Amino acid sequence: MGTGQLASILIQGFEGPIYPIHRSEPEVLELKAYPSVHELPETPDLAVLVLPTDVVPGILEECGRAGVRAAVVVSGGFREVGGSGVEQERRLVEIARRYDMTLIGPNAIGVSNFHTGLNTTYFPYRYDPGGVTVVSQSGTYSCQIYDYAGRLGVGLSHTVSVGNSAVTDLSDCLRYFADEHTTRSIALYIEGISDGEKFMEAARYAVNRKPVTAVYVGGTGAGARAGMSHTGALAGEDHLYDGMMRQAGILRAYSFEELLDWSWALAEQPVPPGNRICVLSNSGGPAASMADCCVRAGLEVPRFSERLQAELRGYLPHTASALNPVDMTFSMDFEMLHRKVPGAILQSGEVDGIVEYNTFGSYLFGVIQEELGDRLEFPIEKAKPVIIRVLKDFKELPREYGRPIVASSFWGREDEAITYLTDNGIPMYPTPERAVSAMAALDHRRQVLDSL
Amino acid sequence: MGTGQLASILIQGFEGPIYPIHRSEPEVLELKAYPSVHELPETPDLAVLVLPTDVVPGILEECGRAGVRAAVVVSGGFREVGGSGVEQERRLVEIARRYDMTLIGPNAIGVSNFHTGLNTTYFPYRYDPGGVTVVSQSGTYSCQIYDYAGRLGVGLSHTVSVGNSAVTDLSDCLRYFADEHTTRSIALYIEGISDGEKFMEAARYAVNRKPVTAVYVGGTGAGARAGMSHTGALAGEDHLYDGMMRQAGILRAYSFEELLDWSWALAEQPVPPGNRICVLSNSGGPAASMADCCVRAGLEVPRFSERLQAELRGYLPHTASALNPVDMTFSMDFEMLHRKVPGAILQSGEVDGIVEYNTFGSYLFGVIQEELGDRLEFPIEKAKPVIIRVLKDFKELPREYGRPIVASSFWGREDEAITYLTDNGIPMYPTPERAVSAMAALDHRRQVLDSL
Repeated sequence: MGTGQLASILIQGFEGPIYPIHRSEPEVLELKAYPSVHELPETPDLAVLVLPTDVVPGILEECGRAGVRAAVVVSGGFREVGGSGVEQERRLVEIARRYDMTLIGPNAIGVSNFHTGLNTTYFPYRYDPGGVTVVSQSGTYSCQIYDYAGRLGVGLSHTVSVGNSAVTDLSDCLRYFADEHTTRSIALYIEGISDGEKFMEAARYAVNRKPVTAVYVGGTGAGARAGMSHTGALAGEDHLYDGMMRQAGILRAYSFEELLDWSWALAEQPVPPGNRICVLSNSGGPAASMADCCVRAGLEVPRFSERLQAELRGYLPHTASALNPVDMTFSMDFEMLHRKVPGAILQSGEVDGIVEYNTFGSYLFGVIQEELGDRLEFPIEKAKPVIIRVLKDFKELPREYGRPIVASSFWGREDEAITYLTDNGIPMYPTPERAVSAMAALDHRRQVLDSL
Repeated sequence: MGTGQLASILIQGFEGPIYPIHRSEPEVLELKAYPSVHELPETPDLAVLVLPTDVVPGILEECGRAGVRAAVVVSGGFREVGGSGVEQERRLVEIARRYDMTLIGPNAIGVSNFHTGLNTTYFPYRYDPGGVTVVSQSGTYSCQIYDYAGRLGVGLSHTVSVGNSAVTDLSDCLRYFADEHTTRSIALYIEGISDGEKFMEAARYAVNRKPVTAVYVGGTGAGARAGMSHTGALAGEDHLYDGMMRQAGILRAYSFEELLDWSWALAEQPVPPGNRICVLSNSGGPAASMADCCVRAGLEVPRFSERLQAELRGYLPHTASALNPVDMTFSMDFEMLHRKVPGAILQSGEVDGIVEYNTFGSYLFGVIQEELGDRLEFPIEKAKPVIIRVLKDFKELPREYGRPIVASSFWGREDEAITYLTDNGIPMYPTPERAVSAMAALDHRRQVLDSL
């Protein structure tokens, strides 16, 4: 117990001093360990308590006396189990209040700040930090998602598992991250809110500053039953929560996939000035399905003016379609795909954003080359820098025109084009429809900002 | 042109004879090439035509005369471009009819049969074949998806890009795969159906034999506009198509993700005898969100009987919840996670299927070990066979009890437990909610079968 958290802090590369406390061991993971808080050479900024339930209040008291101002209590066995756990939790609250401590938990997996390399969960995050902060009433959704997020390309900023929220709750975190500068988009996982007024205040404060997306799972009987036994959360009628989120301008997601997909686009891309979208594809199928999804999601796919169509036809192959959806057909002309066509479209002012399916680099050709050996030769190493050079300009288009681009590809980060774009602020989703769904999230943010 | 298709056939390991035809080259990819169809040493079973539009009818005529009974015309520039392309396509139809040829295309990317290693698309599929067959009016959705499917763990059986459907259309394919023995589940991507009656007949025929799932994207103005310029498909009102699918018992998906997710579960898992579902998790968050999703999807999550709860409590850690949702809490007791608890639940007869979030093997520990070197030692190599031994029984539970299990994990195929289960018929989805959605697809199939 505790070794996993310590391992994560070490792996994440936290540069401040770390003091394991262990009653009997002189060393933990090759770090000098101390028998108690009082014997530490300095007062730590944060204490992480991974201890048997009964011992926690006493140690928290020691921390308070030693001047520790923040603690994460990982240990469970408090309010969520009922009985004497309720009383134990009351003791934690009393101690935290008395010493004016920020207390996360109990029954919380931990907090992470990937910009400083602090990760107090069991799960290493081996990717670059980014702008998405997750605040969660479930530990799993705050940390078992690291690999999932990283493989997708989502850069995480912070994650907080609030656990039982005995002192610091989701609303406090929401207000905190509203002003935290590395956080560009906030994702909430909610099982139940006990103080609705406090939540609404925090939500309004945060939404004024940053996009906030939330999943709420307590609105159905079965969801509530699970939440109750999990963190003791008090769930309420679905429509009440729905109304609260709507009023506050929080975008409601219905799955963790949506939560992260949308938060990602909201963290990386500008808000579109309107809802007119260009569907840009190198293939007819994704063009049709993205267009269909746009309309279902309340986005317009306006037919382009004759003037713009004529301009695009100047760049496009003759079997392509310039109407919008723009079907560029399968082409290796990266200059056309990523510079001329999207540039002309955004320059025209006829749309407010682009959803795209056309990105690929040399991965496919590498696979074929690998399989066929010298029977075939692709100039892959020569092509790569050419592709990246074009993508370098492509990724700047959203900033240049103040209009978002969200993209999609059936290839993943094994392709250098996908990796380059996801690492440089263009969210790339695994299917075309998810890119549209992310664009709809950006459009939701536009509507919220318009109404503020 | 044509080299890409030939490369795929070679890579896929097709074992029959392959004859490249090239007007001037004596060899293509180190295979002896022939100047024309007439000079081949034998009559091929299939001709794949990748040629300039104008040349296609003449060569198809040659194929017919040589006794070739099936052809895929990859070349575009026919009906979908209008003008003289319409007349050219009419010539293809006339030739195919005259020689009684099965003709896929024109403007079709190709067909694949992964059980025989025939892949006439540009895209290699480097995974084991499976039971999902995709028939698509978009080339992309028939072949650019290979890597996506493989990474997820979905085994593909066949894929067909029907292109302009000049002779053989989606309905013909549907009827064919209804009786094709490696296909256990059929996924359709539809932009428009020209002969509604023929489609309904084929759909009824197929649905009687196998689950059929479909995406239809032509029902919105923008989707139809894209489809029209793509394959010349005649789209129709969304509600008409919706009604047709409902009547035929086709499960309608709204994204490619749903299409493949659902087809996968339908290919691998038994149909549940009813809609009572157990939500089984090693973590409270996914338990709550899966339960919530179940209820939204029309699945029941019944509270377990006192008897079953008591039995489960005998296996579960004391902080766990046995109500249903069952929260087993984070545990390394693989025997409990994958044998005792799911076994007792299915044995009880109180539910008709299980949606699960709890699968992991040693990947996480491998990562930590790798990062921390000899500061920490996990018995990973000793644990792996123990885990797999338990999963070996786990994967048999659906067959044993005639009740489906669909699972989820935020880890991917880098973890041996995920790989083992996906390779052995337990679909593992990247998020908990997608597992529920797949269970709802299985429940839809139950309802369809009940109504037949």
